[in-house]
Amino acid sequence: MADQVQISIQEQEEREEREHFARVINSFKFYKLHSLKRLHLSKVSYMNLSDQHKSRILGYMDNLETIQTCVVHNYEVIKLILQDCQFMFLNKDECISDADFERVKKADCAPPTSEEMDKVRTTLRQIVRDWSEDGRAEREACYQPVMHAVLTESRKPSDVKILVPGAGLGRLVFEFARLGYSCQGNDWSLHMLLASNFILNRCQERNSMVVYPWVHQYTNNLATKDQTRRCMFPDISPLQISSDSDFSMVAGDFTKIYTEPNSWNAVVTVFFLDTAHNIIEYLETIYTILAPGGYLVNLGPLLYHWAGQVNEMSVELSYEELRKVMLDIGFEIEKEEMNVRCMYTQNPLSLMQNYYNCVMFVARKPLPRPTHHDQSS
Amino acid sequence: MADQVQISIQEQEEREEREHFARVINSFKFYKLHSLKRLHLSKVSYMNLSDQHKSRILGYMDNLETIQTCVVHNYEVIKLILQDCQFMFLNKDECISDADFERVKKADCAPPTSEEMDKVRTTLRQIVRDWSEDGRAEREACYQPVMHAVLTESRKPSDVKILVPGAGLGRLVFEFARLGYSCQGNDWSLHMLLASNFILNRCQERNSMVVYPWVHQYTNNLATKDQTRRCMFPDISPLQISSDSDFSMVAGDFTKIYTEPNSWNAVVTVFFLDTAHNIIEYLETIYTILAPGGYLVNLGPLLYHWAGQVNEMSVELSYEELRKVMLDIGFEIEKEEMNVRCMYTQNPLSLMQNYYNCVMFVARKPLPRPTHHDQSS
Repeated sequence: MADQVQISIQEQEEREEREHFARVINSFKFYKLHSLKRLHLSKVSYMNLSDQHKSRILGYMDNLETIQTCVVHNYEVIKLILQDCQFMFLNKDECISDADFERVKKADCAPPTSEEMDKVRTTLRQIVRDWSEDGRAEREACYQPVMHAVLTESRKPSDVKILVPGAGLGRLVFEFARLGYSCQGNDWSLHMLLASNFILNRCQERNSMVVYPWVHQYTNNLATKDQTRRCMFPDISPLQISSDSDFSMVAGDFTKIYTEPNSWNAVVTVFFLDTAHNIIEYLETIYTILAPGGYLVNLGPLLYHWAGQVNEMSVELSYEELRKVMLDIGFEIEKEEMNVRCMYTQNPLSLMQNYYNCVMFVARKPLPRPTHHDQSS
Repeated sequence: MADQVQISIQEQEEREEREHFARVINSFKFYKLHSLKRLHLSKVSYMNLSDQHKSRILGYMDNLETIQTCVVHNYEVIKLILQDCQFMFLNKDECISDADFERVKKADCAPPTSEEMDKVRTTLRQIVRDWSEDGRAEREACYQPVMHAVLTESRKPSDVKILVPGAGLGRLVFEFARLGYSCQGNDWSLHMLLASNFILNRCQERNSMVVYPWVHQYTNNLATKDQTRRCMFPDISPLQISSDSDFSMVAGDFTKIYTEPNSWNAVVTVFFLDTAHNIIEYLETIYTILAPGGYLVNLGPLLYHWAGQVNEMSVELSYEELRKVMLDIGFEIEKEEMNVRCMYTQNPLSLMQNYYNCVMFVARKPLPRPTHHDQSS
């Protein structure tokens, strides 16, 4: 009986998972329509101007036409991203069916929310961050401090198993794998996983692809062409990695997938810890799966993705509180740096800029104390 | 007949204005309830934690209690802000009646939207920006460049009439008046005007008031106490201004109020031009009301407040396009500086920071050319 209930929960979960997947694909498919609707607002505003005002901004409509061309091109890239998505996950021949799409199309869950559409646009900007020359400065500010922390450890890379939860488009995992580490990336977001699958498995030549990541930013432009400038990717061929490298990406909920104790030498998190509903649970999970002597390297702010959302658990600790939790769990904090200035998918030419004064730390799961110490305590 | 139609439009406008006013006051009145609702979400999340997790964050609930105390205090300040609001505008004995409030309470316009509530919270942060020692650095970065541009002009301050549209809480207007300029501030936002009325007319002693401006920021805190730290205001007594100074604040729509040609020597705009539905109209208005030889000094980004909103005109020019419009109207650009780094109501201790690479310029309305030139052209 208990087994039957268990199976029925699994079926329910699997159905929900398929539906979620269908919704994500649906949001990508809505990109063109949604972006052209936004463009239309600007066209209407222009059309409602007096003739005198129109004459003062000759070329305005030309620019809107260029924006339209960029949106249409971006949608071609999105179609490539979606190309083999039906066969991507779950090790099944087909992980999403036409029936799943039909359910999504029903009134209760379509069209995509503005949040879902925002994720599509963010995915385009994350391609810049992780896989373009334009994103190098932003990327290096975030990845170099954590890579440096791993590299200063004396062990042979091939002996070190690294887990990167919140791996996004996979560049950090890729960089560790290039150095010979055994490295696995994990992400919960299907938007990310679809894009990373495309880049890692379908893009072969350097700078073979083009995207217009800033085309949705109608404001805070200094030059008109800033909005429609292109970005080439990938800045490095994803094939440039040793064929015997141990490099993988895994989809799903971090706390559910990673339960095997003492199985990783390092966990590296960049802009990840604050994606938790319950950051204490994240830290306990990381402590459990780390081998004794293993360590967590973290860099990020404490934005807390679920903060202030009704019916969503969200435990919003200050760094001061988080630090106490780590010590309480048993971590030893070996390195700690404040004010590591990092950006996240910023348009470098925008008049508006956002950055994070990140906290970077290395926290170790200690080796077991010798037995005679245990007895004396 | 035409007169009657005219009157009826005025009545309609006045009724709408009163209703808008009532809604703004209503949003202030909702502050406590709304803020405590948000706090409640954090309490619920805490209550749903396991006992083990609760034990790892001793003191968490104490902090939530402190947040509650801060919210209640902020509401006391808000009540002071609202104290004489019924008699503030329109030169009438009473500008808002109980009947207005009754209309607001009807289902079709109450409770306040999240945008309106955001404006209330922003007003508290704007008090820090304009009227506290804590806001000095942010304020000086924005106001010093434009004040410097005005001060380098050789005319006697008392001969110079300055208009500051988008004056917000009035500090910049106050600073010009302190220097002896004849200065008028204007703002469309009643949230701003209620708060500026309170500070300029009701706060007398330096640092006599306390507010907790960061209490709504549950995320990106380094220390727990950062969220509940206080800010004292005003950093200067608003009475410290010469009794014969010509200093006023005017409520309402800039383009409707300021129609008299050649009536100002300088228009100074800080974070204002992009509040326009149609920035071309703003610039034409400014050109019209400036006396020949008068000038516009501007500093700000191009965020465009109405961008992307359905059924709202929004003409989102790049600075490049804006510059061409100014020249087309007849302005002569005398000074131009890019990348003037400014912030707007930033929490200096937050892990997340936002800043603007502002454009600062001085654009002059030229003196009429001598007649013989006119004839030759």
